[in-house]
Amino acid sequence: MGILIKNVLLDNETKDIFIKGNSIEKIGSSIEKNADIAIDGSGKAAIPSLINAHTHSAMNLLRSFADDMVLDEWLNKKIWPVEAKLSREDIYWGAKFACLEMIKSGTTCFNDMYFSMDAVAQAVKESGMRAFLGHAMLDFSDESKRKKEIDAAQKFVDYAKKLNNSRIVPVLTPHSIYTVSREGLVWIKDCAEKNNLAVHIHLSETEKEVNDCVKKTGKRPVEYLESIEFFAPGLNVIAAHGIWLDNNEIKILKKHGVTIVYNPASNMKLGSGVLPFEKLKKAGLNVCLGTDSSASNNSLDMFEEMKFASLLQKSNAGNPVVLPAQECFDMATVNAARAFGLNCGKIKEGTLADLLLVDLNNTKLNPNYNLVSNLVYSATGDCVDTVICDGRVLMHGRKVKGEKEILRKVNEIFLKLKK
Amino acid sequence: MGILIKNVLLDNETKDIFIKGNSIEKIGSSIEKNADIAIDGSGKAAIPSLINAHTHSAMNLLRSFADDMVLDEWLNKKIWPVEAKLSREDIYWGAKFACLEMIKSGTTCFNDMYFSMDAVAQAVKESGMRAFLGHAMLDFSDESKRKKEIDAAQKFVDYAKKLNNSRIVPVLTPHSIYTVSREGLVWIKDCAEKNNLAVHIHLSETEKEVNDCVKKTGKRPVEYLESIEFFAPGLNVIAAHGIWLDNNEIKILKKHGVTIVYNPASNMKLGSGVLPFEKLKKAGLNVCLGTDSSASNNSLDMFEEMKFASLLQKSNAGNPVVLPAQECFDMATVNAARAFGLNCGKIKEGTLADLLLVDLNNTKLNPNYNLVSNLVYSATGDCVDTVICDGRVLMHGRKVKGEKEILRKVNEIFLKLKK
Repeated sequence: MGILIKNVLLDNETKDIFIKGNSIEKIGSSIEKNADIAIDGSGKAAIPSLINAHTHSAMNLLRSFADDMVLDEWLNKKIWPVEAKLSREDIYWGAKFACLEMIKSGTTCFNDMYFSMDAVAQAVKESGMRAFLGHAMLDFSDESKRKKEIDAAQKFVDYAKKLNNSRIVPVLTPHSIYTVSREGLVWIKDCAEKNNLAVHIHLSETEKEVNDCVKKTGKRPVEYLESIEFFAPGLNVIAAHGIWLDNNEIKILKKHGVTIVYNPASNMKLGSGVLPFEKLKKAGLNVCLGTDSSASNNSLDMFEEMKFASLLQKSNAGNPVVLPAQECFDMATVNAARAFGLNCGKIKEGTLADLLLVDLNNTKLNPNYNLVSNLVYSATGDCVDTVICDGRVLMHGRKVKGEKEILRKVNEIFLKLKK
Repeated sequence: MGILIKNVLLDNETKDIFIKGNSIEKIGSSIEKNADIAIDGSGKAAIPSLINAHTHSAMNLLRSFADDMVLDEWLNKKIWPVEAKLSREDIYWGAKFACLEMIKSGTTCFNDMYFSMDAVAQAVKESGMRAFLGHAMLDFSDESKRKKEIDAAQKFVDYAKKLNNSRIVPVLTPHSIYTVSREGLVWIKDCAEKNNLAVHIHLSETEKEVNDCVKKTGKRPVEYLESIEFFAPGLNVIAAHGIWLDNNEIKILKKHGVTIVYNPASNMKLGSGVLPFEKLKKAGLNVCLGTDSSASNNSLDMFEEMKFASLLQKSNAGNPVVLPAQECFDMATVNAARAFGLNCGKIKEGTLADLLLVDLNNTKLNPNYNLVSNLVYSATGDCVDTVICDGRVLMHGRKVKGEKEILRKVNEIFLKLKK
């Protein structure tokens, strides 16, 4: 038994796809198999589902809470005070809401750092999505705070491991070099090595971060991390932003196999700068794509993000040829699968059944001279009809279970927070 | 009789809106009126409909036909050869398709220059939208070509006037200073003055245009236009792009009341440059927003365009405060209404009934701390439930009449063109 998708467009040919368990068992013409679920794929194209490589899902509760402000004021006067009011239950519903939005826009996997991550893990588990989750650790060089944060990070790792759910993977998430002490970073590295965990960190997002680091340590951020041996051999480090990198830093990142996550909409909205994509590409770094949170984007739609990704590079270079559609699509699929060690990102026999059916009758996908161009430059998540993750149907005909209840709860929390 | 919208959110209050003929007769609480059409506005917000101030609608047929190419190659090897194959009927269906896409994304009015404009006018008439249409005139300084183009422009103006339809307004549309001779531009100006028509032109889109103009005339584009007395007193000139303007040119444009249309996604995708918005704002110019065509965007969604508009300015300035959400929304509504002399852009008694109901239960509009922020930074056209233009319902519950037939025809033309 399994899921049988009939007559769907796959790489420009009409095919059937048979899913068994959590993976794609067979792709071919006229597959005859008994299936629990039969899906008519006519008028639809099958594409790999998208991976959001950097976000803070629960911050979906804060969309439109504060915009058009300078960073310090935004954080100090708006975001941090309201975050202090968030209960564990609020975060649970915030993450449920983000999962809903991601599913509705064709994302099945995300990489998240925040707090109350056990609540986020519960939301992910219920949603059917895949996620890499970590407790956002910030010690501000305060030793007692560090102890508490190490405890919280460790506790979440233990909690996530006990879930014993292949869709929920704990990672270690030091917030950044300017919010975590050297001792905290070294603990992270040791713990990651010991437990074979990936590390997710904000890195070189703003010019100020670089200048402050040089002032304090005499080194630029990546050089500083290398000097404290943060990049241990074999350690999988996923760095969000990576905007303010010089050539030597790019060389160091390449040497240690660090992945960079590009967050174009957030970088633009906050005026942080532009990812040096061509340099990273030339150096051979793996670059993925993320939305960042809905407080700084304000959307989790990875289709929209792909368009921002390409157009920002073209605009910045004054050259319409850079970052073409296929490379953007790869960022959101195969590059991310590689970064997270997932057997997905392409629709092939034997891969995980993480895929989408997009509606070829949506005006945005017409005419269809080039599907990848349409997906990157014209589509939004609204073109997605069906979402399958780990062999389970999470959305079909744009219907997701529990949508109404989630919106009702989000509205209750909104009424509380806006006071 | 008329249209009665009950219990809709308008400027943060629940109101009823009564539409009679083509305008808003009354806004109030508990309006009791006999109506032909009653619309339940609960769970929805009423906002002014959007105005796309620069596009080439029929080019919707060429979405995804050619992307990621340098401009010369794109035009010479791809766009111009395929445009030569377009029949009048193709253009009619291309414009129908664009109207469908615009209605589905909340745009009720657009400003278009292309060829076979009588076919576009027919499509607009049937769609129920409002449009400002002109025959794109290019003479390449060839006298016999100029005569033909003048004839075509004049013929379209006469055709549009005879339609005697307040929704379809002819304008004069010299393509640009580098494709139209001085004599052609002077004819346009004279004809516009005589017939009281607006003029729509591409201006200072690329640095090359400026350099070539300086080489040829010793003047920058705006100075050149002033020197040939193109900016006649009272003439309404709407200039698309306006990227490569110096301070003196901005002063000249302000003096003559020229409107600038910002096309951020197209400018980014073609790597053309960034509109000097802050300078234009300081000088007091009226700035509107356009998508340009689906061959260079590749979308006609003005909600998406508002986000690009703001984020590009913030990114370019390295400052999250510039071009806040409300100013973006104004570009797509009140600023455009002012440019085109339309009594709309705000929902008030006595204005044209050009308005939208957006679905407040769409995930993208939640939570709703700030509706304008959500509309600009999170919404896409898919949040629009109902579209009313000139007092007629063009979409309700996201259903537009004729959608299937239009997509079938677009697919037929696609199969012909892709050969």
